[in-house]
Amino acid sequence: MKIYGDIKSGNCLKVKWVCDRLALPYTWIVIDIVKGESRTAQFLRLHSGGQVPVVEFDDGRTLAQSNAIIRYLARDSDLVPADTFAAAKMDEWLFWEQYSHEPAIAVCRYQMYFLGRKPGELDPDKVRRGYAALARMEDHLQATRFMVGEALSLADVALLAYTRLAHQGGFDLGGYVSVRRWIGDAEKSLGLPPVR
Amino acid sequence: MKIYGDIKSGNCLKVKWVCDRLALPYTWIVIDIVKGESRTAQFLRLHSGGQVPVVEFDDGRTLAQSNAIIRYLARDSDLVPADTFAAAKMDEWLFWEQYSHEPAIAVCRYQMYFLGRKPGELDPDKVRRGYAALARMEDHLQATRFMVGEALSLADVALLAYTRLAHQGGFDLGGYVSVRRWIGDAEKSLGLPPVR
Repeated sequence: MKIYGDIKSGNCLKVKWVCDRLALPYTWIVIDIVKGESRTAQFLRLHSGGQVPVVEFDDGRTLAQSNAIIRYLARDSDLVPADTFAAAKMDEWLFWEQYSHEPAIAVCRYQMYFLGRKPGELDPDKVRRGYAALARMEDHLQATRFMVGEALSLADVALLAYTRLAHQGGFDLGGYVSVRRWIGDAEKSLGLPPVR
Repeated sequence: MKIYGDIKSGNCLKVKWVCDRLALPYTWIVIDIVKGESRTAQFLRLHSGGQVPVVEFDDGRTLAQSNAIIRYLARDSDLVPADTFAAAKMDEWLFWEQYSHEPAIAVCRYQMYFLGRKPGELDPDKVRRGYAALARMEDHLQATRFMVGEALSLADVALLAYTRLAHQGGFDLGGYVSVRRWIGDAEKSLGLPPVR
């Protein structure tokens, strides 16, 4: 299996973490987003959406969308709750991550970390939405160890990707005690060193 | 089961269509988005995300995010491909819908249809992204009857919700022959009359 990705992208890291955790062998093909390598004619032939990550299996079939990829790779693992309703709650967080979390926090982080913008140059609406997402996570994580109950699931993988990098997008996690506790727990479960 | 939703919201209609198709009984609880009924203290106690649709099962458990809801309700039906890779491609489209289609097309439609804005008052970037999403669907649907092969799946349910309403957001589907053909096929499969 080949993973086409940019190691600085949280969406791409989700796939790497799941493969590493489940000991799935892969070759990492470097796609540099800032250089436009996900929009070349060659890449668009691989995946017409022009987004990373994309995985290409040995038979040539491809799959895109980070959360769809990790859901497929981890389908028979302990990263997906066995209980169908718990799995549905995991899916609820996966869709929420892509709709209400990533478009705010990851985009602010992209603009600062990749493009060199200053905090004052960010879209105030995205900053507001990012803090609203963090507040909702804080509220939820006061009552539960991981996003879906007491065990790590793909909901943690997906939300960890950019929450642990939020400071690179100008977000101050100082007041988010439970979120910071959870980041440590999720990183430890995945064998990741803390981000500086 | 109760469905909390606004009948003018495509995201809410996805849930109604799946229930009707699978003959799942439900009570529809009207939540008027424009009146702010999804942001009241009472609604936020039901679902802290403050978004519709939300379903509440008879045991009091709740589930949010339209695509997570339909994925749960339809889990053992023919709306989810039996083949695991085909189901993963369906998930790819579900996540793409929420990331690259809905935030452009549904938001433009919301601003025109709910808030009364004129086409010239829309965010040009959202209009551009909406047409890019339609172009990708057109390209894909030239080669396949439904979004995932020859049978209706949740990918069609999710993408139909706002594609059939795109004209209400100022989008001209005139040049999108395959998209229009697919709208007719999907509406017919779901027993829906065409939108005027």
